[in-house]
This record gives sequence, structure tokens and C-alpha cells, in this order.
Amino acid sequence: MKRYVYSFNEGNRSMKELLGGKGANLAEMTKLGLPVPPGFTISTEACHLFYDENKTITEGLIQEIKKAMAEVEITLEKKFGSKENPLLVSVRSGAPVSMPGMMDTILNLGLNDETVLALAEETDNERFAYDCYRRFIQMFSDVVLDIPHYNFERALQRAKEIAGVTEDTMLDAAMLKDLVEEYKKIVRKSGGKSFPQDPYEQLLLAIKAVFESWNNPRAQIYRNINKIPSHYGTAVNVQSMVFGNKGDDSGTGVLFTRNPSTGENVLFGEYLMNAQGEDVVAGIRTPQPIAKLNTHMPEIYEEILKLCNTLENHHRDVQDIEFTIEKGRLFVLQTRSGKRTSKAAVKFAVDLVEEGLLTKEEALLKVDAYQLDKLLHRTISNEGNIEAIAQGLPASPGAATGKIIFDADEVEQMGKKGEKVLLVRPETTPDDIHGMVEAQGVLTTKGGMTSHAAVVARGMGKPCVCGCDSLDIDLEEQTLKIGNRVFNKGDVLTIDGSNGNVIIGEVELVEPELNNDVLTVLKWADETRDLAVRTNADTPQDAQKAREFGAEGIGLCRTEHMFMEPDRLPIVQKMILAETLADRKKQLDKLLPIQQNDFYGILKAMAGLPVTIRLLDPPLHEFLPDVAELAIELALLKEEAQLSNPDIQKREDLLRRVKALQESNPMLGHRGCRLAIVYPEIYEMQVHAIFGAVIQLINEGVEVLPEIMIPLVGEAKELEILKDMVNRIAEEYKEKSNKELKYMVGTMIELPRACVTADKIAEHAEFFSFGTNDLTQTTLGFSRDDAEGKFLPSYIQQKIYQDNPFAVLDREGVGALMDIAVSKGRKTRENLKIGICGEHGGEPSSIEFFHNLGLGYVSCSPYRVPIARLAAAQSSIRNK
Amino acid sequence: MKRYVYSFNEGNRSMKELLGGKGANLAEMTKLGLPVPPGFTISTEACHLFYDENKTITEGLIQEIKKAMAEVEITLEKKFGSKENPLLVSVRSGAPVSMPGMMDTILNLGLNDETVLALAEETDNERFAYDCYRRFIQMFSDVVLDIPHYNFERALQRAKEIAGVTEDTMLDAAMLKDLVEEYKKIVRKSGGKSFPQDPYEQLLLAIKAVFESWNNPRAQIYRNINKIPSHYGTAVNVQSMVFGNKGDDSGTGVLFTRNPSTGENVLFGEYLMNAQGEDVVAGIRTPQPIAKLNTHMPEIYEEILKLCNTLENHHRDVQDIEFTIEKGRLFVLQTRSGKRTSKAAVKFAVDLVEEGLLTKEEALLKVDAYQLDKLLHRTISNEGNIEAIAQGLPASPGAATGKIIFDADEVEQMGKKGEKVLLVRPETTPDDIHGMVEAQGVLTTKGGMTSHAAVVARGMGKPCVCGCDSLDIDLEEQTLKIGNRVFNKGDVLTIDGSNGNVIIGEVELVEPELNNDVLTVLKWADETRDLAVRTNADTPQDAQKAREFGAEGIGLCRTEHMFMEPDRLPIVQKMILAETLADRKKQLDKLLPIQQNDFYGILKAMAGLPVTIRLLDPPLHEFLPDVAELAIELALLKEEAQLSNPDIQKREDLLRRVKALQESNPMLGHRGCRLAIVYPEIYEMQVHAIFGAVIQLINEGVEVLPEIMIPLVGEAKELEILKDMVNRIAEEYKEKSNKELKYMVGTMIELPRACVTADKIAEHAEFFSFGTNDLTQTTLGFSRDDAEGKFLPSYIQQKIYQDNPFAVLDREGVGALMDIAVSKGRKTRENLKIGICGEHGGEPSSIEFFHNLGLGYVSCSPYRVPIARLAAAQSSIRNK
Repeated sequence: MKRYVYSFNEGNRSMKELLGGKGANLAEMTKLGLPVPPGFTISTEACHLFYDENKTITEGLIQEIKKAMAEVEITLEKKFGSKENPLLVSVRSGAPVSMPGMMDTILNLGLNDETVLALAEETDNERFAYDCYRRFIQMFSDVVLDIPHYNFERALQRAKEIAGVTEDTMLDAAMLKDLVEEYKKIVRKSGGKSFPQDPYEQLLLAIKAVFESWNNPRAQIYRNINKIPSHYGTAVNVQSMVFGNKGDDSGTGVLFTRNPSTGENVLFGEYLMNAQGEDVVAGIRTPQPIAKLNTHMPEIYEEILKLCNTLENHHRDVQDIEFTIEKGRLFVLQTRSGKRTSKAAVKFAVDLVEEGLLTKEEALLKVDAYQLDKLLHRTISNEGNIEAIAQGLPASPGAATGKIIFDADEVEQMGKKGEKVLLVRPETTPDDIHGMVEAQGVLTTKGGMTSHAAVVARGMGKPCVCGCDSLDIDLEEQTLKIGNRVFNKGDVLTIDGSNGNVIIGEVELVEPELNNDVLTVLKWADETRDLAVRTNADTPQDAQKAREFGAEGIGLCRTEHMFMEPDRLPIVQKMILAETLADRKKQLDKLLPIQQNDFYGILKAMAGLPVTIRLLDPPLHEFLPDVAELAIELALLKEEAQLSNPDIQKREDLLRRVKALQESNPMLGHRGCRLAIVYPEIYEMQVHAIFGAVIQLINEGVEVLPEIMIPLVGEAKELEILKDMVNRIAEEYKEKSNKELKYMVGTMIELPRACVTADKIAEHAEFFSFGTNDLTQTTLGFSRDDAEGKFLPSYIQQKIYQDNPFAVLDREGVGALMDIAVSKGRKTRENLKIGICGEHGGEPSSIEFFHNLGLGYVSCSPYRVPIARLAAAQSSIRNK
Repeated sequence: MKRYVYSFNEGNRSMKELLGGKGANLAEMTKLGLPVPPGFTISTEACHLFYDENKTITEGLIQEIKKAMAEVEITLEKKFGSKENPLLVSVRSGAPVSMPGMMDTILNLGLNDETVLALAEETDNERFAYDCYRRFIQMFSDVVLDIPHYNFERALQRAKEIAGVTEDTMLDAAMLKDLVEEYKKIVRKSGGKSFPQDPYEQLLLAIKAVFESWNNPRAQIYRNINKIPSHYGTAVNVQSMVFGNKGDDSGTGVLFTRNPSTGENVLFGEYLMNAQGEDVVAGIRTPQPIAKLNTHMPEIYEEILKLCNTLENHHRDVQDIEFTIEKGRLFVLQTRSGKRTSKAAVKFAVDLVEEGLLTKEEALLKVDAYQLDKLLHRTISNEGNIEAIAQGLPASPGAATGKIIFDADEVEQMGKKGEKVLLVRPETTPDDIHGMVEAQGVLTTKGGMTSHAAVVARGMGKPCVCGCDSLDIDLEEQTLKIGNRVFNKGDVLTIDGSNGNVIIGEVELVEPELNNDVLTVLKWADETRDLAVRTNADTPQDAQKAREFGAEGIGLCRTEHMFMEPDRLPIVQKMILAETLADRKKQLDKLLPIQQNDFYGILKAMAGLPVTIRLLDPPLHEFLPDVAELAIELALLKEEAQLSNPDIQKREDLLRRVKALQESNPMLGHRGCRLAIVYPEIYEMQVHAIFGAVIQLINEGVEVLPEIMIPLVGEAKELEILKDMVNRIAEEYKEKSNKELKYMVGTMIELPRACVTADKIAEHAEFFSFGTNDLTQTTLGFSRDDAEGKFLPSYIQQKIYQDNPFAVLDREGVGALMDIAVSKGRKTRENLKIGICGEHGGEPSSIEFFHNLGLGYVSCSPYRVPIARLAAAQSSIRNK
């Protein structure tokens, strides 16, 4: 015959599906011989039975429950409902997955007008007994009988007024007795029936309430959102009560087996004598640090130490434990894996390996890769107590405090004097870079995660909050407004680029620390992972930083940022506006030595490691002034006729040419390799600059491994044409220098068409690098800049997408196309080198996906390299 | 032993691969017993042998050639190289596929200093003989000996100067004899050797030259472009010469077996007595119409009639024939399928079926679906002689002539008076529609194939040339400039929307004609095809027109054009700029009855047929004024301080709100169903309008079949949410009216993500309709507006894409994704209705692809419906 009820000494932790998480956990501790108050679990299958039987508890199940209760009675030498030695129990729900929204706990069940007397006698404490009874009636009525809480609160309030006291604890036994009578009247009046006196009636009603709560609306919504199958059902735990408030030899406490904040291997926690959990929460009395228990009750303390040791060894993780001492006897009520700071998590991992409790691989899985970010940036020390006045986009992680300044020059001056300043602008441009360098952080009111400010700040590892559109900057007045509040230049704000928060005033920050524990964990990660980790870096400084963080090469060196440097922009603009090939070449000739020097620096910083250089990608008009501004300027000049005719003509010409370069959808426009198909001379200059630098470095004895990457290829012929060009120029340099040149030519896979024609493209590509930012944009038809500002928040709120697809890879859509590209590419070229250099390259869950897809490397911004190393190792372990 | 040489009486037309097209064709005619001058073909395998043997002609092959020549000698009782009765031959290349760029023809081979005397004697015409010899030397030297043509031209010129004559034909025999001597000197001097006198040496050199020309650069390039395999090789045809210039009983001519222009079943062509083909081309003498030959040489004419009959019956198609009469004897030199006008093609097809020569299916394949377009629009009557002064985009087919007018109001006034006018604008807006209605055609200097002008003109079936950027319109001066030419208002131009040409002055136009032959062909097509054909139509007028053209429903009714009507635009703008839900609803309430009336009209026009209504698709800011213009206006007003402060404030507000709605990539922005996810009230209004109209029509007894289409779905949940909304509103109308409502809810598949998640989307979609315009944009990452103006021409020129992917579906990329979508969609919903409503729906080669993909229908603009019907039938036949 099928069983529905299991004693705690029958189950174990592997039986979560049947007994729920809490039940399995209690059984496991019982099995370990730990002092768990005896009890039993009514299984999830009983929950199914309950619903199958039209929400009734079958007679068979009732018999099983009574049998289990009898065992508890024998163990404790007490009796449920007895007038002499009454057994009291708690009733708790316990689903296979922790799930808020359901009925939680009823304590002291089994009390009635008679057993309360026995309890009073047994404890020699009438007040205690009636207080328990009062609380039980209130709790039971609320969650089982559905009588609103406030009815009881009102009665309690009245009782205190009559007694002339302010605190519950000041009511004496007599008063509490009266209150119990009052409570019972409320039950009769609101529920239409007397408060049930039969303990089994109480128990069955409570069990029914737990089962029913599985399907209450809050629980259903929670399950929907978190994709918890509704067929799981919930178990019910019935456990004998223990009391920490039975006198001075009783108490209750909570502890961590190690310090969850620093990771130090000492007990961490607190306790309170003659108290129940509720009293600790109420905060009337101050709990004692756990160490004090050693002097107070040394034997109990010793027992706790052993208990901690047993549980840590058994679970091989730091535990968060609840215990109660009843009349000098220790009981453990709960244990679970302890929440911890990133720093502690890393220390735990290292210590537990040293102690032989964990293998390195197990330890690696215990560190949350997402949290590792906090160790690499300044963080706000007491985050829980901070209130943000505005929230923008978390564009570049880390916190920064400083005076707000609206002008990059001023930021530079003050920064150089050592003042802490934040650069605050509507949006930044290449003209602001010197200010960004000296600022503590950057705050903009416009622009998305790919805006200039965001990209440059991430590269610098500088905190940045972008697109904070509830802020209003008045550049003339030099003020920043939020609603009715006005901040002046020089006022202090704090920003947190990890969550987008903007905070008033100075806030204490915690310095980042790549301590030895972190380095140890990362070393283990490197030994474990299959995926290589590279970095996205555009300057020798970034490259150097990334190398320190463990990058094994550059996966994306964007050449457009080189074009944007203020000293070059005028040449670049002339090049773009050139109306003849000769004119354009003249400007390109000026850019050649500058670019060559860029590549020289980067290749040198990455000596011995591969460097993927992407040729120019963005639409040319990104380098030009704004059309509307030009038009306004021209219109005003004409109106005022300040200028002579030829001058106006010249400006009109400029406006016409800039206009001609405008595009209605630049993301889908004349960019990437399309530039070079129409103007081959631009890429030719860049390739000359690369090989010029390569020859320089070879002559200096530096090993260089450039990988030239052609962006935005959609058709194999594009790559064929441009690869031929690269090879032709390489030949020239080979001949001229009489050196062997090691290099590769490959492409970014960032268009759906490239994915479905990857077999053809692989005929010409020596490597693929997925550009998942652009691939996400085209696959979903989402312009990132427009989506994040306009409709994506609604999409995430309505759960159409679970995550921002620009942060966490959309596996179902973009991932499906990547899968096609990988198999088609490898069909043509079995050992095709494939990586990914979009922003997803630094996102742990996406990294696992890339690993499973069979990619060879991920590339991410320097400050995310450590995260990627760990995430890659975790993926290798999980998917062995 | 392997053979390499085939006599004309050994082969047939199925042997093209071995004998080349020309050789197989000559053999076929010989087999039919037609009077073909005897000869033989050296096979393509001999060409391979030639290359295998290091470009030499093997001794074995030489023997085979001599043997074949001997047979010809016996037949003709002549001898190759004989001094008495010399056999002369022509040598021609003939690859399996017609291929320009190769060596073509050498005539009169076999002439030398001795045989020329025999020819003179035989013809009793010394001048004729030496003229033949001179031409032979010149032709042979040019193509075989590689001696440049101009050397001989110069000598000829000198000879004429010495003789004091101006025309070649005025040189007498003695002068030509001298010229031959001069020519031989040139050969000796330039080629280093005497002109070969041995006829077999001449022959082998000529054969070698043909083989070598297979691999000359021009031929290679042609093969690359047209994907002709280079392993084909070429054959060589050696054929005995016949002369139409041997006296008054000789002649030459060209004819079509039926009139290629009208299709009439009468011989059509011309001939010239005592002449060679060259003379006809020289145009000195006027050829006679072929009918005259009946009086002139009735027996030959009779023979020709028989010949035509035989060839037409045999090839079951109209033939284009070359013939020569030598001394009263008819020879046929070539026959091929005759080129024809669309009108003739249709008539041929119908006649040949009536005559029992073709089945209906065969006849359907003889009509070029692309050409059918010309029968539906006015065309330029004598297109060959017209020179365009400018070329824009062929935005809407058909030709139009009229006075150029720059203002829509003026166009309307003049048009209503019956004047023929062209509306000429930089670009059109909804404000110009009344002008477009009255104009003969529309010409714009800006905008692409999807610009307002293009889309509206196509819908109206009105000729339109767009984006003609070499034109410069000065609206103040009311002039149109092209380079230095200036046209004033009222000057007459002609445009041809089929090729984008702009032509000066009035040009004779041919009226379109859907005659009985066309209707017959289309009836056959309807009996044959599997694909249904629907139309894209936004107005009752378009719907009516399309029904006349045979549309079986509406596949795409765009509701945004309804929003753009001038009387509604102000309401739409207020709706968009509304800052509260209440405000927006107020404006939507005003739009509801207007939209309901739109749907009423369209559903009524399509009574009994399905109508797919796409809910609002474009980004909202498309309905708003231009930001730059607003900004300039505001700047000027501020400068002049014309307005009081509050007025400026109001305009600043407007500018701010319009700016907030701007997008950096509108194509990937807040549009399609994304509008309704954020602002559900917009689609709700549209759905109310649809069901309101449906109930009205049901009450009138009209059968309506609306299919509500949700655009731009990328994730199944979007569709789920919006389908629920539609169903909810439908329920309301059902209850209110107590009627059964027949309707479907489906989606456009126009994003790559929709393709790869089509299985999930099909859980909610009752139909799919591919939006191949948008799908092409996202798959290729091409913004159509930007691509066509900026880089696509370079791409097509460099053959990166063979065709404009917005005109002809990109099968490799977009097609691959469609394939995925169809199989995934049908996996979920086996009988899923799938169609396509992008512009490719009217393009014949794309239609074949859609048919093979298993789609159920294509939808195209009204004027392309007949083309689609024919193309669909052709696909069904070809892919049986």
C-alpha cells in the first residue's frame, strides 16, 4: 500500500520531491543523529491525493497521521491533547522548491482550554502558557479560519489600554486569560463556530490549509513567473514544539558556521536566553554574540561547535543554523547554505579546499560569478540603507562619489588637483574624453548602453550611469534638477554603475581587492576551463590592464575609437567629406602613420598573444557634426546675413554633403565591410598600418599575431574580395621586408544571413567571431538604443523576454542562429576557430551557452575578464 | 575508337553538349532533310583533347577532319584547295551555351592565290572573287594571326584614295587584286610569315584559334559572371560556303515565321537579291519585304513556306530563320526561336494551342511572365531610339508624358481640366495625394523604392520614377535642372517607371491592352496553378481593381495609409503626442468611426474573399513633422523674438515631444506589435473598427472573411497577448450582436527570430504571412532606403549579389530562413496557412521559389496580379 506519511527518521536530503525541501532537510539532520525535535512529514503525494479526492483528507491518510503522531508521543513520552503531559506541534508547509506566497507556519498547535492548564503547570508559568495559547488562536484563525488579523490586534490593543500598559509583555497571566476568552469570542462571531478544541481537528484543518495554499493566487503567480510546475504540490511538516522561553536555562539563536562577511573561520551569530525567535525579531532585548555562550553554557557551546562541524562536513558548505535550547537541552531546527559576500564566498571556497572538504571543482561552483564583479570595482559599503533619488542604466560597474561638474575641461583641472569630481553631461562626445579620464565617474541623462559614455567608461573601468532621463541638466544655469530638487555645480552626488542608482551626498565606498584568495580561485578556474578568455581593448592601456586580469589575447580591437580621438577627427572628417578619390587618399595618407602607431602600441602590449583587429565598422556619418545643428546654424546665419555670400555657400555645401551621408537606419546602413566595398582605400590604409606596425615589431624581435577581422559580412563574396585585398598587401610587405608574416583573416558573424550561409563564408574565413550585439539587433529587429529607451522595459515587465537580450543572450532566437552558424562553418572547415566578442562575452549564463555551443573563446571588456574566467570554468565543470 | 568529328547528317538537336548549340542545330535541320550546306562539327571533346595535348591538334584528329572534308567534297563535287572547282568553307565556334567573347566566324576559308582564280572563272566575276579573297585575308589575319584590324583598314583607305573613290564597292577587280597583294605584304611584315596558302594549314590554324578563344579573358569573365562551367569547351563547325551574291538568281534574307510584333500568322521578313548578309547590314540597298519574293521567285517562296512550316511544327515555336539563295537554289543557314513582343508572345501561345502544336501547359511556358507587365501599363512605342537624360529608380511601372508641375494643387487643377501633367517634387507627402491622383505620373528626386511616392504610385498603378538625384528642383524658381539644362514649369517631359528613365519632350506611347488572348492565357494559368494569388490593397478602389485583375483576396491591407490621409493626420498626430492615456483614448475615439468606415469599404469590395488586415505597423514618428524643420523654425522665431514667450514655450514643448519620439533606427524601433505592447489602446481601437464593420456587413447580408494580422512578432508571447486581446473584443461583438463571427488571427513573419521560433509562434498563429521586405532588411542587415541609394549599386556591379535582393528574393539567405519557418510552423500546426505579402510576391522567379517552399498564396500589388497568376502556373508546370 502506498505511504503518504514519513517520520523524520525515515527520509533523507535526496527526497526533496517527495518530502519537500524542509522535510528532507529535517530528515537528513535526524539521520545524522542531530538533536532535531521529532516529527513527521506528510508527502507531496498526499497533496495530489487531497486534490484528487476533491479537497478532502482521506480516512486512510488520517490513520497514517495518527500512527506517526503516536510514534512521536512514544519518543517524547508526551501525548497529543493530553491534560497531563500535552504534546504541542508546529505545522509548516514545505514544497520541493522554496516558494513564498504559501501558508507558512502555525506554532503551538494542540493547545486548548485544557492543555493550556497542563502547560502552565508543567512550566510553572501560567503567563507563558496563556501567551502561547493567545498567539496560537490568533495565528490559526488568521491562516486556517480566514478571520482577519486586525480583529485580534484590536482586542489586544484594548486589553493593554484597560491594563494601562504599552507593551504586550507587560500583560500578566490574568490579563492574558481574559484576552484568550475575548479571542475565542471573536472567532465565534466572525467564523460562526467556536474555536476548535479537539487537537486532531486543529491538526487536520491546518494540514488542509497548507494543501489549499498551494493553489492560492499569490502562489500561482509566483509559480508562473518562476516556471515552477504546478504538479509539484507541497508537503506538510508536523514537528514537536520546543521552547526557548521556558526559563533561564532556555534560549534561542541563529549562527553562521563562519563569518559570512569576511569569510573568517570562526562562529558568527547571536543568541538570547529565555526567549523565542519572535522576541529576537522584536528587538526589545539585545542578543548576545555567540562567543559569549562559551562562558555562559560551555557544554552547550561545545555541542554547538560539534554540530557546526558535523553539518559543514556533511554539506561541505558554510551553514546558516537556527537552534533552540530548552531547559539546558540543545535542539537544531534548521540548517541551510549560508548567504555570503563575494569576499567571503571566495575565502570559503579556498579554505574548504585546504581543509579537504571540497575539491577545487566543487569550490569553483560555490563562487557566484555574477558577484565576482563586486571585487573588481568600488562598491557602496552599506547598500541596504541607501536610497536612490534616480535610476539610469547601469552602463559601467562600480560606485563613485564626487562633486558634480558639467564641463570636461573643468573636470580635468579639478581632477588633476586631486579633487573628486563626477562628470555630468546630457551625453558625452570624443571632446569629453580628457574629462572622463580625470573624473571619478560619469553620469549622463541621454544615451543607452552603447552610447559613447557607456562604451568609453567600460573600457576605462570607470563607473558610469547613462540615460538617466529623470534628471534635467541646465548647462546655462549649471544645475541638475530632479523633480523639484535642484543641485548646483559642486554639490556632491554618488553614482553606482552596477545598478544605475544616483544617490545624494557622499557615501562610504569599499575599495576593490583582488586578494590572494581571488587569485587562487582564478588560477583553479584557468586549470579547469576549456574556453579561452580574451578582451575587448582599443588602447595599449586597456590591453595592459586586461593582461593583468588574465586575458589571453584581444578578441576585439575596434579601430573606430582611434578615428574619434580629438586630434584626428578633423582629418577623418575631411577624409569622409572628400568628393574625389584623390582627396580621400590624401587624408588617408595623413591617417596612416597615426594608425600604424596605434597598432604598434597594441600589438606590443599583447606581445606573444593573438590580437583581433576589426577594420572600420560604423557608418561614416557617425564621425560628422549633427545635421540639425548645422541646419540651425546656417538658417540663423542666413537670417542675420552675418556672412558674405561665398561663406554661406560654403556652409551650404557642407550641410549638403553631411546630409547626403545621413541614413535613415544607420545600423542597417553603409557601414562595416560595405564601406570598403565602395571605398576600398579606407581598409587598404588600415591594412597598411597593421602590416607596417607588424614589420616594425618583428624588427624589434617582438612576436605578433594579428588576426584581421572584416565586420558585417553577409555574403561570402564580400569577404572573398576583402581577404584578397589583405593578402595582396601582406605580400607586398613580405617581399619588401623579406620576413615571414604570421596573420589570419576572418570575419564577424553578426548578421542572420551570415549565420545561414556560414558554410560559404567559412570557405574564406580563417576564423569567426560572433558579434552578438549586432546579431541580437538584427535577429530580434531591435535597435538597442531605441529599444532600451522605449519599449524594452514594457517587454521585460510583461515577461515577454525574461531578461534584456542585450545583457543575457537570447538563446532561443539568437542562440539558434549561432548554432546554425557553428555547424555550417565547421562543416566547411572542421577546425574553424570560433569566438564571440559581443557584450555577452562577459555574462556568466551566456558564457555557459557559448561553451556548450563549442566556441573556442569569449572576449569581454578588461574588467569582466576574471568573471569570464570563472564562468568558463564553472561551465566546464557543469557540462563535463 | 573515340570519334571527334561528326558530319551534319550524323547529329541531332539533343547533342548540344557534344556538338555545341550551333552544330546540333545544323545537324537537326540536315536530319529534317532541309537544304543545309553540307559540313561537319569538331566536337567539344576535341577541345578537351586539344588542351590535354598541350594545345596541339593530334594527327588522329587531323585525319578525321580530312575524312569528313572528303565526304563534303563528294557531296558537292568540289575539292578543298582545288584549282578547278575549289571547295570554300566557313569556320565557326559553337559552345553548348551561347557565349559572346569568343572567336566567332571566318568565311571563305580555302581561298589562296590559285583558288581565287578558279572562283573568278567559275562565277565569271573576277571582282567578286578578289573581294572574297581580300575579306578572307583580313578576317583570318585579325582573328587567327592576331594582326590588328586597323593595318588593313588603312591600306583599304589608301587604295580608295588612289582610286579616287569613296565606297569599297567602287573598287574594281584590278584595284582589289592590288589590294590583296598589299594585304599579303602587311601579313608578312606584321606576322613575320607569309599568308598561308595551304588550305589545310588555314583550316587547322582556324580550328586552333577557335579552341584557344574558349579561354581568352573576355570569355572567362563571361563564364564567371554567368556561372557557365569552364569544362564545357567549345565545338567547331566547318561548313561549305554558299553565296547569295553570285548574280541575279542569288540572294539572301532573314524572316520570322509569324509577325514578332503583333503575333499575326503571316511570314515576316525581308530579302535582297545578289547580296551577302554584310550588304544588308551596310544599308546601301533597301531590302524587299519577304512577300515580294512570291512574285519574284514563286517556287523559292513556296519552298520557304514549306520550310517555315516544317521548322515551326518541328520546334513547336515561332522561328527566326536565315537563308541564302545561290543560283536559284535555296539554302537554310540557321533557325532559332524568334524574339517577340509580349503581345505577340501571348498571341503565339494561344494560336499554337489552337493549331494543336502546343498543349496549354507548353504554351504557358512560352510567355515570359516578366514581359507581361508591359501589357498592363502604357509603354514607350519605339524604345530603342529613345535617349534618357537621367535615370532614377523604377518605382512604379508604365510610361507617362506631360507638362512638369511642382505643386500638387496646380497639378490637380490642370489635371481636372484634362491637361496631361507630371507631378515633380523632391519627395511627396500625404499632402500631395490629390495631385498624384490627377497626374499622369510622378517624378521625385529623393526617396527610394519604399518612399511615399513609390508606395502610393504603385498602389494607384501610376507611373513613378523616384530618387532621381541627378535632377535638381528649385521650388522658388519653379525650375528643374539637369546638369546645365534648365526646364521650366510647363515644359514637357516623359518618364518611364519600368526602367527609371527620364526623357525630354513628348514620346509616343502604346496603350495597355488586356485583350482576349491575354485573358485566355490567364484562364489557363488559373486552371494550372497551385498557388493562390492575392493582392496588397489599402482602399476599396485598389481592391476593386485587383479583383478585376483576378486577385483571390487581399493578402495585405496596410492600415497606416489610412492614418496618413490629410483629414485624419491632425487627429493621429494629437493621438501620438498625447501624454496621458485619457488624452490618447480621446483621439482614438475620434479615429474609430473613420477606421470602421475604411474597413467597411474594403471588406465590402472583397465580399466573399479573405481580407488580411495588418494592424498599425510603422513607428509613430513617421506621422509627425520633421525634427530639423521644427528646430530651425523655432530657432528663427527665437532669434526674431516674433512670438511672445508662452508661444515659444508651446513650440519648444512640441519639439521636445517630437524629439522624444525620434529613433536612431526606426526600422528596428518602436513599431509593429511593439506599439500595441506599450499602447494596447491603439490596436484595440483598430480591432473595434474591424468588428464594427463586420457586424454592419453581416447585417447587410455580405459575406466577410477578415484575417487580422499582427505585424513584427519576434516572440510568441507578443502574439499570445495580442491574440487574446482580439478574441476578447470579438467576444464582445458576438455577444452584443448575437452573430457568429468568422475571422482568423495570424502574424507576419518578418524577423529572423520569428523564423527560428516559428514552432512556438504557430501555437498562437492561425496563419503566417511572410513580410519579405522587412525580412530581407533584417536578414541582410540592409536598410532598403539607405542601401539602394548608397552601396547596393556597387554590390550589384561587383556581382556580390546578382540581383537587388529587394526585387528578387535572396534565396540563399532569406530563403533559408523562410524554409526554417515553414517547416517549424507546420511541425506545430500541420495545415498552417502560409502566404507572402512582401514585394517579392509579384516577382516571377521568387514566386517559383515560394511555390516550391510550399506556400499557399502570394500577395502583390494589383497591377502585378496577372503576372503572379502566370508565374504561379509556370512554376506548377515546371515543378510537377
